[in-house]
Amino acid sequence: MKHYLKRIAMCLSVCTGFSLGTVAMAEDGYEMWLRYQPITDKATLKAYQSSLREVMVAGDSETANAIRKELTLGLSGLLAREIKAINLEKSQTTVAKNSLLVGTPATSTAIANLNLGERLSALGDEGFIIEQTQINKRRTLVVVANTDVGALYGSFHLLRLLQTQSSIDTLSVASKPKLDYRVINHWDNLNRLVERGYAGLSLWDWGSLPHYKSKRYEDYARINASLGINGAVINNVNADPRILSEQFLEKVAALADVFRPYGIKVYVSIYWNAPRAFGVVDSGDPLDPRVQAWWNERANIIYKHIPDFGGFLIKANSEGEPGPQDYNRTHADGANMMARALKPHNGVVFWRAFVYSPDIGDRFRGAYDEFVPLDGQFDENVIVQIKNGPIDFQPREPYSPLFTGLKKTNMMMEFQVTQEYFGFHTHLAYQGPLFEEALKTDTLMNGQGSTLGKVLDGTLTPMTRTGMAGVVNPGTDRNWTGHPFVQSSWYSFGRMAWDWELGADEIAEEWLRQTYTNNSAFVDPVKTIMMFSREAGVNYRDPLGLTHLFSQGDHYGPAPWTEDAPRFDWTALYYHRASADGLGFDRTKTGSNAVAQYPEALAKIYGDLELVPEDMLLWFHHVPWDHKMKSGRTLWVELVHKYSEGVDQVREMRRVWDEQEGNIDQERFLEVKALLAVQEFEAIRWRDSCLLYFQTYSKRPIPADYEQPKHTLEEYKKMARTLYVPEPWHPASSSRVLK
Amino acid sequence: MKHYLKRIAMCLSVCTGFSLGTVAMAEDGYEMWLRYQPITDKATLKAYQSSLREVMVAGDSETANAIRKELTLGLSGLLAREIKAINLEKSQTTVAKNSLLVGTPATSTAIANLNLGERLSALGDEGFIIEQTQINKRRTLVVVANTDVGALYGSFHLLRLLQTQSSIDTLSVASKPKLDYRVINHWDNLNRLVERGYAGLSLWDWGSLPHYKSKRYEDYARINASLGINGAVINNVNADPRILSEQFLEKVAALADVFRPYGIKVYVSIYWNAPRAFGVVDSGDPLDPRVQAWWNERANIIYKHIPDFGGFLIKANSEGEPGPQDYNRTHADGANMMARALKPHNGVVFWRAFVYSPDIGDRFRGAYDEFVPLDGQFDENVIVQIKNGPIDFQPREPYSPLFTGLKKTNMMMEFQVTQEYFGFHTHLAYQGPLFEEALKTDTLMNGQGSTLGKVLDGTLTPMTRTGMAGVVNPGTDRNWTGHPFVQSSWYSFGRMAWDWELGADEIAEEWLRQTYTNNSAFVDPVKTIMMFSREAGVNYRDPLGLTHLFSQGDHYGPAPWTEDAPRFDWTALYYHRASADGLGFDRTKTGSNAVAQYPEALAKIYGDLELVPEDMLLWFHHVPWDHKMKSGRTLWVELVHKYSEGVDQVREMRRVWDEQEGNIDQERFLEVKALLAVQEFEAIRWRDSCLLYFQTYSKRPIPADYEQPKHTLEEYKKMARTLYVPEPWHPASSSRVLK
Repeated sequence: MKHYLKRIAMCLSVCTGFSLGTVAMAEDGYEMWLRYQPITDKATLKAYQSSLREVMVAGDSETANAIRKELTLGLSGLLAREIKAINLEKSQTTVAKNSLLVGTPATSTAIANLNLGERLSALGDEGFIIEQTQINKRRTLVVVANTDVGALYGSFHLLRLLQTQSSIDTLSVASKPKLDYRVINHWDNLNRLVERGYAGLSLWDWGSLPHYKSKRYEDYARINASLGINGAVINNVNADPRILSEQFLEKVAALADVFRPYGIKVYVSIYWNAPRAFGVVDSGDPLDPRVQAWWNERANIIYKHIPDFGGFLIKANSEGEPGPQDYNRTHADGANMMARALKPHNGVVFWRAFVYSPDIGDRFRGAYDEFVPLDGQFDENVIVQIKNGPIDFQPREPYSPLFTGLKKTNMMMEFQVTQEYFGFHTHLAYQGPLFEEALKTDTLMNGQGSTLGKVLDGTLTPMTRTGMAGVVNPGTDRNWTGHPFVQSSWYSFGRMAWDWELGADEIAEEWLRQTYTNNSAFVDPVKTIMMFSREAGVNYRDPLGLTHLFSQGDHYGPAPWTEDAPRFDWTALYYHRASADGLGFDRTKTGSNAVAQYPEALAKIYGDLELVPEDMLLWFHHVPWDHKMKSGRTLWVELVHKYSEGVDQVREMRRVWDEQEGNIDQERFLEVKALLAVQEFEAIRWRDSCLLYFQTYSKRPIPADYEQPKHTLEEYKKMARTLYVPEPWHPASSSRVLK
Repeated sequence: MKHYLKRIAMCLSVCTGFSLGTVAMAEDGYEMWLRYQPITDKATLKAYQSSLREVMVAGDSETANAIRKELTLGLSGLLAREIKAINLEKSQTTVAKNSLLVGTPATSTAIANLNLGERLSALGDEGFIIEQTQINKRRTLVVVANTDVGALYGSFHLLRLLQTQSSIDTLSVASKPKLDYRVINHWDNLNRLVERGYAGLSLWDWGSLPHYKSKRYEDYARINASLGINGAVINNVNADPRILSEQFLEKVAALADVFRPYGIKVYVSIYWNAPRAFGVVDSGDPLDPRVQAWWNERANIIYKHIPDFGGFLIKANSEGEPGPQDYNRTHADGANMMARALKPHNGVVFWRAFVYSPDIGDRFRGAYDEFVPLDGQFDENVIVQIKNGPIDFQPREPYSPLFTGLKKTNMMMEFQVTQEYFGFHTHLAYQGPLFEEALKTDTLMNGQGSTLGKVLDGTLTPMTRTGMAGVVNPGTDRNWTGHPFVQSSWYSFGRMAWDWELGADEIAEEWLRQTYTNNSAFVDPVKTIMMFSREAGVNYRDPLGLTHLFSQGDHYGPAPWTEDAPRFDWTALYYHRASADGLGFDRTKTGSNAVAQYPEALAKIYGDLELVPEDMLLWFHHVPWDHKMKSGRTLWVELVHKYSEGVDQVREMRRVWDEQEGNIDQERFLEVKALLAVQEFEAIRWRDSCLLYFQTYSKRPIPADYEQPKHTLEEYKKMARTLYVPEPWHPASSSRVLK
């Protein structure tokens, strides 16, 4: 709520000449993009003030209350005057000129009288209309929806338009989400450690729940609702069975109570062998009636605590987690058993396809080979949740061929917002371009224009339920995400989950304007560096289709030299296949033939050394060191070039950022400035480590016109011991026996 | 800095009638006791305003700058007007009437001219004088010290007087610390997990250091400096050797740079076998010249990075940590080797006496038996750091007899602020009374009045260096400490480290006034519950001298039933010795005779069933269930009575707190209210678990006029699986091999 005070302080300073002197105001990123700072453009401010004289919200639900609260907060901040969103009585049909009216035909006669008909009904349960209209011949801005949650989303959208100083004079927006399930995944253990979390401990303080409901819980809901996110899986997919105990369910229910007004349902990740862990049934066989009965009863217990509970997310037979295959049953058998326990309560199962057995020749093939044979066997309330790429959230991956392999199965895409492979909380790496690249990949499955987005939204592949999941892993750090720019990826995930056709570029601009300032002297150059920040991350880590060169376990720094591990597919060598004769993984017919998992037209391109996009080259081909690239350089020199380009891009990011001093608050300016210094150090470390290592195979020099390595390979290997974050993989095994 | 805005908002509201409406201002505890809210008592405000018209600080050191910054911030907030502490030129000898002048005779001629002579020189390097005086016949308030750090402490003390609305009209204060080393211990692992930390991750973000210096680092320094704390051991005593690498030392140096202006030196905990971990010397023998050379060189490297580095804290041959005994050398051999490496740089060694071998009959005896034979063998720059009690920070312990056993050795006391045994972040348990009880324990070593405080400050036992350490374990939680009232224990530790004669009662009042409000309708009753909160914690956990009934490993909930463990001294049975014939550990002549480690006069009291204070009874005696207590009740019924009293006290705390609604901000009111509900639940769980368990031995009923247990013993045992916090004991063993 600090923005209030800032606004007042500013007003006071203007009105009375009282100055704050040298004492700066703290800008710590807590408010994310919901900062509601006073509009700085005077004409715009005046226009808004005269268009929004009265604010009325219909309805008496908790959600209607949330809308009133948000508009009061937001408009008072933005318009720099006290504005109170008041209750619009259902029967009221006249309003003052230049009012804002929010509601549904059911909650307000004035809105029903607008007779929006088919235009409105086409928007479903979550869509909204915002437009300038007239009520009793008086100019009125309305936010209309079929439900209170739709009206909430519309209200947040209006606030976004105001925050970005868009004109509202002739506003007419109709919007509905393209996907049904827009879900945040948290990898939070019950002991509050967050797997792949780089922003503090888990937001959920189990020790003080259900009694104490931290203000953060509500702010978390506001942040998500502002993007239209409608679900949160609150615990780690490497799941602790205790989440299903009554003791924990009471706490989960308290969170659900806070989230509900904001349209967010709670889901939990479950441990497949929970019936065994609870000491009730000595089996996890999904066809065993005792196991089924246990889950049915557990579902009943859950819904007693949380009547609108969302459902389960399940990681089964994946990286050592138990699952139905342990009992010689299929993923479909397992998912359907869960689905049937939830069905009577309208719950849903998100069943993860992140599987790869150590004994297959190519990890790339794993999910496709296991799931395609099961196509059509999953119950209607199961959605298979598939990571965007075939491996694991790498800086660049081709899309997972499972998305075009399944034809009769509900699917949703899982993206990663937390920067597991992008430098944790210390690197600036806006993920919008990665999300956009994935969603707009042309699969060619039904000819050109067969984008993945059209698969996901059901246009190309019929589905009863659609969705998108984002592994965000926010934590108790004051700014939620560690690096302030990870906020932009969260924002981008949410906006694209609503509408995958949005561009990363426009989303970055929205985010910058709301989060920092509308000043284009800041927005334009910083948007530019955001837009290439992901590519920079690819370049200095694993360009040209290299992948998985990360230090094992923590995934922070470079370790292309990892050639020994308990499993070959946990080494880096497995992925890069460097040898004296070249580099890259042959996935064509002469190799693992994983390309054949793609639609034929695309397989032809990826499988052809001449046609494959160079940024995917080494994903699909083992290429001689002297192979000529489009640039005219050899593969080896191109590799040097790309790694060097990555470092140069980080330097350019630093240069641009350093020019921003004074354009934004000093606190956030200095933080990002310092983190970019860390990033340059790390980018050099990546470049040098990888080039020196690959040089041991290529036996070729780094051309003199490129910056030479700062240290030797041995020195870089020593530097690798730099794990500064907790890495809690699994819950303590002791917590998995509750009897 | 938010208080500024609040003040302005308040002023604005008063001056212009502008109201903040329903939007509350966030009070999240971040500012601790340095809130600097406007003085609410109008007469006092007026008096302060007219006494503090100009504020001038002499000196151009970083510390002088810090004083100017703090006084600007503090006085502008308190006096609700813009006040800028300006530079006082050294040569300036006249000042405006009613000024505040801060400086030393060396930095200001005006101050030198006061000729404070012996009065000032007696105060040493850290003391200060604050008084109303006259300069050129003009009324002036001065803060004078021999050093800038002394002036800083004086400035913070003045701000404390103002925050608590003390009269400054005839002020004359002279103060100096009674102990030399006033040190915070952090048990922070390098992966940012905090052992026994209940307030988030480590404050030190190694990943972004040394480049990014979070604002928190400076605020941490301000918080400590305001109490006169002058050292911080920044990492866990279960130490990770990487802290000594150049890579980390650069980061540690960045912290030292932030802390230095505030008079705080950085210390690190070291891993005894570091020379082996670094792969240089295959030995840890302190008499091996190669080992000595390694440490000498490492000290040189450290001091190159941090010229005023404080020294080492060492946990050796304790709970599995390596140490000199592994090489058949003594603690003195080990400590002296370290001391000699640090001596040329004026560094110091804190050598912990927390040792207990599994093969001694009574853990109580461990430290005394190992260390007393070494008395007189420690180098001058070694201080033996001894926990307040003989076991481990239990809710009530007698004092560690080592304090009176050592006669020719520097000693400091180690207290625990973090609530390892007091309910983590969910219970209200002000530790001031525990600290006071320990410090004012009469050891009788030189007759009556031989308090431990007089041992510690060197009055009774000659020492070249004195000190006190507090294991605080603050974290990234917004309010630093988890439960807001843990702040009060931190505050109390700091104040008593400065002056052990201060009372817990007056300290609680100081803290409440600064942290919440000067309104006595709040301060008086809340101080009352603070003052009995520790005793309540004793009563519902382990009254009458019971101890160590905690769940193993996490130490949160009750587990008096622990009778099996790898070591007998890790069971609860080891400590309570319940049997059919009674309860308690016989430490008299008929038992382990640990009482004989105390001065004879005290040993007589503790060893006598009739003389021993009842709150220590079961520490020293095995007592029959039907033993008549002073109350007339049997031991068994007294136990029931005490456990029940603990629960009743929590209920009283709830009742009193609930009456405070409106007296303070709603946000902190609701948080503590909710946490007290958790505490009542847990207190009942403790009472019932313990009584039901001891009943299996006593075979006696819980009298009907006491509340009966809510669940069965078996049910309570099941409830014990409630670990909600990370419990990182040791650093990963892999991090201990760096070669």
